[in-house]
Amino acid sequence: MKAVQIGTAGHAFYAYKAIKNYGLDFAALSCGSAGIAAEGTEAALEVVKKRGFAPKLYDNYITMLDEERPDIAIVNPQFTENADVAIAALERGIHVFCEKPLAPDLASLDRLDAACKASKARLAAMFGIRYEAPFVTAKRLVDAGEIGEIRLMDSRKSYKLGKRPAFYSSRKTYCGILPWVAIHGIDWMRWFSGEHYTKVYAAHSSRENGGNGDMDITSFATYEMTNGVLATITADMFRPASAPSHGDDRVRLVGTKGILEITDGALTLLSDAAGGKVNVPLDPPKDIFADFLEELLHGVPCDCGAEASIESTRWALLARDFAERAE
Amino acid sequence: MKAVQIGTAGHAFYAYKAIKNYGLDFAALSCGSAGIAAEGTEAALEVVKKRGFAPKLYDNYITMLDEERPDIAIVNPQFTENADVAIAALERGIHVFCEKPLAPDLASLDRLDAACKASKARLAAMFGIRYEAPFVTAKRLVDAGEIGEIRLMDSRKSYKLGKRPAFYSSRKTYCGILPWVAIHGIDWMRWFSGEHYTKVYAAHSSRENGGNGDMDITSFATYEMTNGVLATITADMFRPASAPSHGDDRVRLVGTKGILEITDGALTLLSDAAGGKVNVPLDPPKDIFADFLEELLHGVPCDCGAEASIESTRWALLARDFAERAE
Repeated sequence: MKAVQIGTAGHAFYAYKAIKNYGLDFAALSCGSAGIAAEGTEAALEVVKKRGFAPKLYDNYITMLDEERPDIAIVNPQFTENADVAIAALERGIHVFCEKPLAPDLASLDRLDAACKASKARLAAMFGIRYEAPFVTAKRLVDAGEIGEIRLMDSRKSYKLGKRPAFYSSRKTYCGILPWVAIHGIDWMRWFSGEHYTKVYAAHSSRENGGNGDMDITSFATYEMTNGVLATITADMFRPASAPSHGDDRVRLVGTKGILEITDGALTLLSDAAGGKVNVPLDPPKDIFADFLEELLHGVPCDCGAEASIESTRWALLARDFAERAE
Repeated sequence: MKAVQIGTAGHAFYAYKAIKNYGLDFAALSCGSAGIAAEGTEAALEVVKKRGFAPKLYDNYITMLDEERPDIAIVNPQFTENADVAIAALERGIHVFCEKPLAPDLASLDRLDAACKASKARLAAMFGIRYEAPFVTAKRLVDAGEIGEIRLMDSRKSYKLGKRPAFYSSRKTYCGILPWVAIHGIDWMRWFSGEHYTKVYAAHSSRENGGNGDMDITSFATYEMTNGVLATITADMFRPASAPSHGDDRVRLVGTKGILEITDGALTLLSDAAGGKVNVPLDPPKDIFADFLEELLHGVPCDCGAEASIESTRWALLARDFAERAE
């Protein structure tokens, strides 16, 4: 199979390990064309080169898609362009591995949804945190009934602000902290519980954002779900530079028979069956792009396929839109 | 000074240490009269006896107040009676140390507020967690500017369900998890930040509540505050029986210069000035009733006086009312 990459703004590197392991041809990469952020391109190209890839470079992704006719497009432009770029690939029958949020607004998401349904090509979204060891392990325990029925979940994303590219400074070019950061938790709470969101309330603030225009730097979103399950998340970019990791991902899953908690990359289970609180040995992490390739090659449904990813994206956008309207 | 106790439902014992240390006369105790829960009375009287007190017992608190004419009443009836009992004491010029929530509904809270303003007597509420060592220490660090300006806070209360008295099973006799449990966090986030709540959204659920009638067992409340500060809290009663403590109190205070976090009774500070994440040695805990006595005896303002406590109670009731209306 032949793969190409469009844009260099986010987590395209999620695909690189499986591209090698599955012997894909990483044939071409497009960056810098209209609407595709050029910022960070050089650093991203360095990564590509270091991994031993030598894709042909294009500056127009439409030209690249039409000339290269790849099987898979890794879609990673400036975030607000994700939907348009993904639709262009899907319309050409090209499978899409797409950065989240899948769309910058609900209208674009609906167009993407329609494009997915009209295309024989498949789409998966880069909800990569779910494939990390503590998440994979927690999901296995939830599915095995270790904490009974999930009733309440809370999640947290805290990132270092660092130096953000200029496009973060405007709501026209940056989707916001809820669809960019909190979306991971919004996605994983849906995935962990198997419930669906029914109601959202959210807020965000751009105060004290280190001079980054109207970029929001704090936020929360709360959800009510099917079966009366409650879910909350906060996301911020106030993690101090001296912190040991870029991000602080946390989840707490409260079930009728126990509580699972992910903190600092570790997983604990608190339950009577476990005799109290215990550290859970972690399963190996999984590879998100390999998961997608297994669907494409062998029909094994990918864990972050179109339907699930569009649902997660929708509820992240609804949160952002609610927060904006309430300002 | 002469003290009496009305009811035995909650944390009246908060007062006992300072009663001894300040040489107060614990003259009388009323329990079992109309509207004052009799459940748990025997166990509570055992505690009183073990502490070496021998109050005269009454079964009617009005009779007791009029006959004993105490200086202070420790108000601790079935929670929904707090406001009425407190008002009866305030109207007699008797200082009140009152269980939270101060009132079961907003109308009662307004009556209590008016009674406070009309009386020369003072009121303080039993927001005792704030006086624990990690909270006292975190507050000192916040006030010293260690984390800059607070921008986001999240809190958690998780309790063991255990065997709850029958009055928890009905919304007519139990105020709900938001005003009974989450209220602590609602109070401490106001106290830590010095901000005021401006907007609330909340939800609760009584599903899978272990056969406790319509008692809610999961909840969240989110707040927007003055200066755009965001605050969230979850409260549940799904903490497994085998957990090492009854309650799991957590707070995360995200400031412009650092993050303070209370977990498992310990306090951490994450900031560049601290060089990363450090465990903070704890100040000694404070005594909430001693704090109130200092106000009564020496005019030093108590940290959980009427105005602050009524504000915390109001926003807990608003959360509960919102959650009920949305059901």
